[in-house]
Amino acid sequence: MSESDTHIVIKTTETDNVGIIVHSGGLKKGDRIKNGIQLRENIPMGHKVALQNIGEGEKIIRYGQPIGFANQLISAGEWVNSSKITTPEPPDLKSIPLPETSVPELNPLEGYTFLGFRNQDGSVGTKNVLGITTSVQCVAGFTQFVVKKIKQEILPKYPNVDDVVALNHSHGCGVAINVPAAVIPIRTIQNISTNPNFGGEVLIIGLGCEKLRPESLLLANGTTADTSVTPEISNIMMMQDDAFSGFSAMAEGIIQMAETRLKKLNRHKREICPASELVVGMQCGGSDAFSGITSNPAAGFAADLIVRAGGSVLFSEVTEVRDAVHLLVPRAINAEVGNALINEMKWYDDYLMLGQADRTANPAPGNKTGGLSNIVEKALGSVAKSGTSPIVDVLGPGEKIRRKGLIFAATPASDFICGTLQLAAGMNMHVFMTGRGTPYGLPMVPVIKVGSNSKLSARWFDIIDLDAGQIATGEKTIEEMGWELFKMILEVASGKKTVACDKLGLHNDLVLFNPGPVT
Amino acid sequence: MSESDTHIVIKTTETDNVGIIVHSGGLKKGDRIKNGIQLRENIPMGHKVALQNIGEGEKIIRYGQPIGFANQLISAGEWVNSSKITTPEPPDLKSIPLPETSVPELNPLEGYTFLGFRNQDGSVGTKNVLGITTSVQCVAGFTQFVVKKIKQEILPKYPNVDDVVALNHSHGCGVAINVPAAVIPIRTIQNISTNPNFGGEVLIIGLGCEKLRPESLLLANGTTADTSVTPEISNIMMMQDDAFSGFSAMAEGIIQMAETRLKKLNRHKREICPASELVVGMQCGGSDAFSGITSNPAAGFAADLIVRAGGSVLFSEVTEVRDAVHLLVPRAINAEVGNALINEMKWYDDYLMLGQADRTANPAPGNKTGGLSNIVEKALGSVAKSGTSPIVDVLGPGEKIRRKGLIFAATPASDFICGTLQLAAGMNMHVFMTGRGTPYGLPMVPVIKVGSNSKLSARWFDIIDLDAGQIATGEKTIEEMGWELFKMILEVASGKKTVACDKLGLHNDLVLFNPGPVT
Repeated sequence: MSESDTHIVIKTTETDNVGIIVHSGGLKKGDRIKNGIQLRENIPMGHKVALQNIGEGEKIIRYGQPIGFANQLISAGEWVNSSKITTPEPPDLKSIPLPETSVPELNPLEGYTFLGFRNQDGSVGTKNVLGITTSVQCVAGFTQFVVKKIKQEILPKYPNVDDVVALNHSHGCGVAINVPAAVIPIRTIQNISTNPNFGGEVLIIGLGCEKLRPESLLLANGTTADTSVTPEISNIMMMQDDAFSGFSAMAEGIIQMAETRLKKLNRHKREICPASELVVGMQCGGSDAFSGITSNPAAGFAADLIVRAGGSVLFSEVTEVRDAVHLLVPRAINAEVGNALINEMKWYDDYLMLGQADRTANPAPGNKTGGLSNIVEKALGSVAKSGTSPIVDVLGPGEKIRRKGLIFAATPASDFICGTLQLAAGMNMHVFMTGRGTPYGLPMVPVIKVGSNSKLSARWFDIIDLDAGQIATGEKTIEEMGWELFKMILEVASGKKTVACDKLGLHNDLVLFNPGPVT
Repeated sequence: MSESDTHIVIKTTETDNVGIIVHSGGLKKGDRIKNGIQLRENIPMGHKVALQNIGEGEKIIRYGQPIGFANQLISAGEWVNSSKITTPEPPDLKSIPLPETSVPELNPLEGYTFLGFRNQDGSVGTKNVLGITTSVQCVAGFTQFVVKKIKQEILPKYPNVDDVVALNHSHGCGVAINVPAAVIPIRTIQNISTNPNFGGEVLIIGLGCEKLRPESLLLANGTTADTSVTPEISNIMMMQDDAFSGFSAMAEGIIQMAETRLKKLNRHKREICPASELVVGMQCGGSDAFSGITSNPAAGFAADLIVRAGGSVLFSEVTEVRDAVHLLVPRAINAEVGNALINEMKWYDDYLMLGQADRTANPAPGNKTGGLSNIVEKALGSVAKSGTSPIVDVLGPGEKIRRKGLIFAATPASDFICGTLQLAAGMNMHVFMTGRGTPYGLPMVPVIKVGSNSKLSARWFDIIDLDAGQIATGEKTIEEMGWELFKMILEVASGKKTVACDKLGLHNDLVLFNPGPVT
């Protein structure tokens, strides 16, 4: 048998006893892989083949970690899929040791810059957008109406402004506004409007009778009343205000307010900013078995470069971190941060239990078709996008970043909810890895889409920005692809390259995380 | 003192010991009202004045029902506001007697018709709309893109089709799809696409990897798998389908599918249909103290007319029914329906308790400014829109109607969630009462907006369709206004009159009720 007759399978550590089939059409029974093993059955692309005999009850090892136990004897060359794997218990949160010594920082990386919009508060935008936020879903139709009108009739007069975006959401009334959980959607709405890409200009459309007071949107972090702050009510337009007689007057009112802000935003100019001003939200959605060996490790490599350059990286998705949290806690810069990470896991365990669910509600059917057998395998691949830096802080859902470095921003794994919460945290760049393919995009922040496999990246050639599948086929290394992504981030952040979803106008809705009841 | 010196205050039963101030500017200290009572302080429009001395601990009576207890001595002429009222316990669900004899039906009303679109399944539409539904939020951007393109480029060729509407929502993935509570959002999405205004044409955009299988949208009532049904996959476009290479191919694919359906819908013609084909969703939002004496009773009168004509009326909003449920259970046609009504209250009590809330999370600040002191007063006014007919059925949230008559469709009181669930129940007309003013609208079904007071109706002259405030000023009776609303419903349902929110293009988002956790 010549070497050329064998087909590529990928394992990431020496101890892995399963490998991932790379061939885009999958492999057939009888096909040969390394060590002279012959496939005992057809195995689709992305799925696992046993690289040795695995006895009943023995660990199935991927990424050097047990992803479960064989519930039957699995022979070398067999397909290892979810029907043959018992999902293990998640890491016991009480027994994970907190870090005692500080984790060493990575070597600094100097000299990388991008052209950003520097704001008065010191933050840096990568787009120059007028955001019009709202206190309640009731005004969503009105907000859409005026945004459309502003974009058509006024925006063309202000060429330095990239876009006008309505920040509509489903909250604000018909909710239990005072329960403890309500702090999450409230601070999310508050913090989104201070995203760096809105240039410090806040414009609010309120109704008047709603529970979420429009004035409170000028506060932060879930505060609903603060008598020490005089709200700049000049930023608020209330539809029920006696001053407006009829719809046209209301529309005129808000359009005038918008034009004042467009004039100010139009004076913003891009300037050279160090890469340390990047706040990159990393996310994956529609993952497959390649995600953990191609796109996510490449994103992790880029994350390390950003952190080395002094910038910030957010990683998220509690249910896709939960089963790998024992690997993350030791990376916390101190016991306090380690403990905060554990507490976010605990909070989510309780939240799911209250809803009669658990972490196994993830993965989705498409993840499984893509070769991910269970949440453990998914999580181990998911956390690869955090790279190797120390974790310097942990944010609750919807909280805003407080310091630079690698940060765990706790969010659900739901793509659109995670993105909404990362916006609130203050990301000015978004990187989204996908294996099955999702058309995800946001109008506020550029979203670079990275394909985990070349089959998808080829089929979705105009929706995917970067094909990390080249790692699986050996055309590129993780390091090369990580650098490529890092450089693409700087280019997109500078406005020199437009991402696919912006070219096509593919933008998702904001979707809030509201663990509290509606009324 | 001449009669002309006294100002109008409204009480609805002889036993009421408070009255509602009608004068649009409110009344001043010293102003005289009936029985020689002088106001002891300024009282705003819509607020309550004590019509007699009310001792500490005594009942405050409005609508002939206690809305609470005086927490201090209240003298005749004093302002009776929430600070002086202790909210009572809600009706004890265990002690409400179930109906033993059947409730008498109202006299039939013959001869009223409208011009509707009759569908193959027997239902009747009031608009002729192509609805494009979706299995998951991931595809929302794509769906918006293609809907915009279809409306601009293809819809003009089909003049009998009123609109093309994207049915985007926040569900479908990143959720615990198998928990008991998940049945609610799932059946809501399923049942919305069978709304009579979509003419029986179902078109679905799916992604491919999502938890909510696109095929299951062709089933009903929360079913996620039914092997006895062969899904008409010709109605589904999957973005991840291997057949589509790139975005343009996907867009072309769905646009072709849409055109086939537009051709079919374009052949639909309005025909004379009896008023018994109406399914009217009644809702109120941004209520004030007038809502319960003007717009809601007028809507209740119209509801009786529709039921007498053999049609269906949905009323909803559990937290605004809860405190009046002892008045509704006796109107159930039998013990089973009465019990179902009680069970929906019980379910919501438990749901709120689990979220550390209770019914007092309602009313909203604007309701209070409008004179509604607590949820009891709000509920007693809210149920007026159910009229006086027997309650023939109770639907769980998102369920579809099963029979004609007056039906309680259990929903949250949140306007946008209630509307979404009434769409799923199958309403072909929507009537929305407001006192504070909300720009609420939906693109799928006409929404008639009724103002509860003339001050709002005048200020929002181009957003409100009907001013029920004329009842408070004595210009019209409830009966006259009820007939006016009934006739307007027939006119709008016939396509002869366009409602204000459709003229302006004011349309809210669909917002699902998802009591289960996100993942």
